[in-house]
Amino acid sequence: MASVLTPQSEDFPRWYQDIVAKAEMAENGPVRGTMVIRPYGYAIWERMVAEMDARIKACGAQNAYFPLFIPLDYFQREAEHVEGFSPELAVVTIGGGKELEEPFAVRPTSETIFGEYMAKWVQSYRDLPLLLNQWANVVRWELRTRLFLRSSEFLWQEGHTAHATEEDARNYATRILRDAYEDFMVQVLAIPVLIGRKTAAERFPGAINSMTCEGMMRDGKALQMGTSHELGQNFARVFDMNYLDADGQQQLCWTTSWGTSTRMVGGLIMAHGDDQGLVLPPRIAPTQCVVVLVKDADGAGESAARLADELVAAGVRARLDARVDTSFGRRATDWELKGVPLRLEVGPRDLAEGHVTLVWRHLSKKETVPLSAAVKLVVEQVNVVQAEMLASATARRDEHTSQCSSLGDVVEASQTGFARVPWAVVGVEGEKELAESAITVRCLQREDGSVPAADDEPDLVAFCARAY
Amino acid sequence: MASVLTPQSEDFPRWYQDIVAKAEMAENGPVRGTMVIRPYGYAIWERMVAEMDARIKACGAQNAYFPLFIPLDYFQREAEHVEGFSPELAVVTIGGGKELEEPFAVRPTSETIFGEYMAKWVQSYRDLPLLLNQWANVVRWELRTRLFLRSSEFLWQEGHTAHATEEDARNYATRILRDAYEDFMVQVLAIPVLIGRKTAAERFPGAINSMTCEGMMRDGKALQMGTSHELGQNFARVFDMNYLDADGQQQLCWTTSWGTSTRMVGGLIMAHGDDQGLVLPPRIAPTQCVVVLVKDADGAGESAARLADELVAAGVRARLDARVDTSFGRRATDWELKGVPLRLEVGPRDLAEGHVTLVWRHLSKKETVPLSAAVKLVVEQVNVVQAEMLASATARRDEHTSQCSSLGDVVEASQTGFARVPWAVVGVEGEKELAESAITVRCLQREDGSVPAADDEPDLVAFCARAY
Repeated sequence: MASVLTPQSEDFPRWYQDIVAKAEMAENGPVRGTMVIRPYGYAIWERMVAEMDARIKACGAQNAYFPLFIPLDYFQREAEHVEGFSPELAVVTIGGGKELEEPFAVRPTSETIFGEYMAKWVQSYRDLPLLLNQWANVVRWELRTRLFLRSSEFLWQEGHTAHATEEDARNYATRILRDAYEDFMVQVLAIPVLIGRKTAAERFPGAINSMTCEGMMRDGKALQMGTSHELGQNFARVFDMNYLDADGQQQLCWTTSWGTSTRMVGGLIMAHGDDQGLVLPPRIAPTQCVVVLVKDADGAGESAARLADELVAAGVRARLDARVDTSFGRRATDWELKGVPLRLEVGPRDLAEGHVTLVWRHLSKKETVPLSAAVKLVVEQVNVVQAEMLASATARRDEHTSQCSSLGDVVEASQTGFARVPWAVVGVEGEKELAESAITVRCLQREDGSVPAADDEPDLVAFCARAY
Repeated sequence: MASVLTPQSEDFPRWYQDIVAKAEMAENGPVRGTMVIRPYGYAIWERMVAEMDARIKACGAQNAYFPLFIPLDYFQREAEHVEGFSPELAVVTIGGGKELEEPFAVRPTSETIFGEYMAKWVQSYRDLPLLLNQWANVVRWELRTRLFLRSSEFLWQEGHTAHATEEDARNYATRILRDAYEDFMVQVLAIPVLIGRKTAAERFPGAINSMTCEGMMRDGKALQMGTSHELGQNFARVFDMNYLDADGQQQLCWTTSWGTSTRMVGGLIMAHGDDQGLVLPPRIAPTQCVVVLVKDADGAGESAARLADELVAAGVRARLDARVDTSFGRRATDWELKGVPLRLEVGPRDLAEGHVTLVWRHLSKKETVPLSAAVKLVVEQVNVVQAEMLASATARRDEHTSQCSSLGDVVEASQTGFARVPWAVVGVEGEKELAESAITVRCLQREDGSVPAADDEPDLVAFCARAY
């Protein structure tokens, strides 16, 4: 069957563009860099939100909502922050038909406005830690945009927390990185992200430490899928975030911030998709199993409907496709394009022999199975497919990770995947040199894979790659 | 115990302001008219979103997300729409440090941008109805703002649908009004809203019919809590929303839009709150039962913790308050302020006799109950309280609704509640006259309470009131 997508090997960016359009995930909005997220794309985002929100709450944070509009002078208070974000601001200068005396920015991120209010709410050590999160849209004026991956407006969650000690702040930033972000990405998205520390050059503006989750896409490039920052006392100082400690002494708070966004939808597409379309891990798929009625004859319609009902009753996100006025082939292609993990094809011919056909999207495999065993099999395969997808994504990542010992090696290895190299071989100078080949240090790890407490620890390993 | 709130009877608006602040619901943002929704207020909104979203999906609509930024010329295409919204727009004129050639608006509502894209997605009658909804923030430049009730930025859902026929559009707009909005407001918020049709003067800009849910607040004023509009073919014409019918003929779609917002949080506060604070119906309360440890002695701490765990296991949203370093009285006052429906007080003295104290927030009633019966009683009372709150809100609404037969009657009755008057007595001229006393026709109903199909049906009844 001819593919409706540009093959990945021919032009990966074009393949991505095709899939976003053909699987009805999103379209460009009318204002440059904005996006319209269509129902199928949004259903995936909704599941991401539900799964991530539960993990964030399990880490003890509460949701709140802060304003979209932020006074310009808030940005100017923290030196690195203003430098980082000023070029990206969208500014409102007219309100209610009048020129505003004090124009304001559409939030690009909310450290400053959270800082202003958290300073009011934190009085004593009893108010700490204060753990807040919000789900919101943010705007960064981007020059080159790509749906989900880099857009002027995107949806995200941003956490902002205040702590009594540096240690507590660091532990919490790490806990979010591990228990919320990594757990979600690995267990639900089946993307075996690398966890590490950013180099000074790649740090969030105003942070003293940025930690990251880096996923490998099927073209060997890296995607930063979530970050968690220790902000030290930089924002606390600027916004007077003080507290009285148990001894009645005034102390400055330590803060963190951390975020994940609709960018993860782009990562999901590029980590698993193939030339036939999306391939969704069952835990994130809006539909885990579609029951496709091949032809409505000899009771096939009733059997298909019953199967779909039984699957739903068994806890599977199943749906029935009984649109027999559209050709079976076209519908099958469409479900492949949409990446539905499991497909049960129900037709009169198979049924006459007591069979239905089960199709695994991630393996492009078909098998004839007894109708009576179908529900049990699908329930079981939901978990099997999830595990297999994580295993194959992990194998792919490892195959495309090369051990390097020189910058030359790194440049070569980065053409097809990640380069693992001693950080001492790269260093700040090497980082600049690699940048000329559009290669960046994605993260630093210790030899054992754990996250370093500083970039000058001995024997650190750098993972380098081209990146989105 | 002295109340921390201004009494309602003394100054209702001030009471409202006090409660929003003291119950830690929200604060004013730094940019005029914006709001910071604090965790307790946001937890209520999150429950509203979950309950409403489920109802909207049950009505067949799918969620999507459209851009925050809308080109200014989109608004200019529909004459009434531009007139209605132009004075309220916030306009971005600077992006990425540069003056923009084409400034754009921050969305005040999204009929136009949905129209533009739905026109592309609808080709044939098979694509209809197209039922979309989004949860988003919107901005309207308001002169007088009040937290939750009228703010420059607010959170809402907005539904936008396209249909093949006028009848189908009307039925769907009505279905959302009844099965999503009214059902949620009555069953979950325990607010007995009136359902009716808006007069021509009160219609949404560009609509041919606006229908509304009107709640009565405790000061007798009305609050419009949700609206559902038939847009006729006005937006379809402007955005070329055509489809090929079954006979291959080109036809124009019929569209609807409908919305509910964070305004409902304000309605919830004002419909049930009293001089001691919020009174939340159990189905919307983030915490349905708080177990308050009076004093940690003689095993009271363990009993309280066990009770809280058992309540959670029994499906109650319960939490433990064991902060014995804060005085019991202060904590009790705080839970009353926060409107938690049921409170179990657990102290060593009661426990010695095998008792705990149950407090009903809506009745300000206390009763000593056997510890062994407490969980079962709370589970039962969650439903009882919900029903009692709806019954008393309904009785209050009916007591404060006067049957009137002249405009003079209406003006008098509107000082304390709703005036029910024959629409023939008011009419377009009377509507203008009432406006001078800040009284509006909230909605039109048929004698039997059903929603009229036109404002010139005979024997319609008008409900008039002062309103937020």
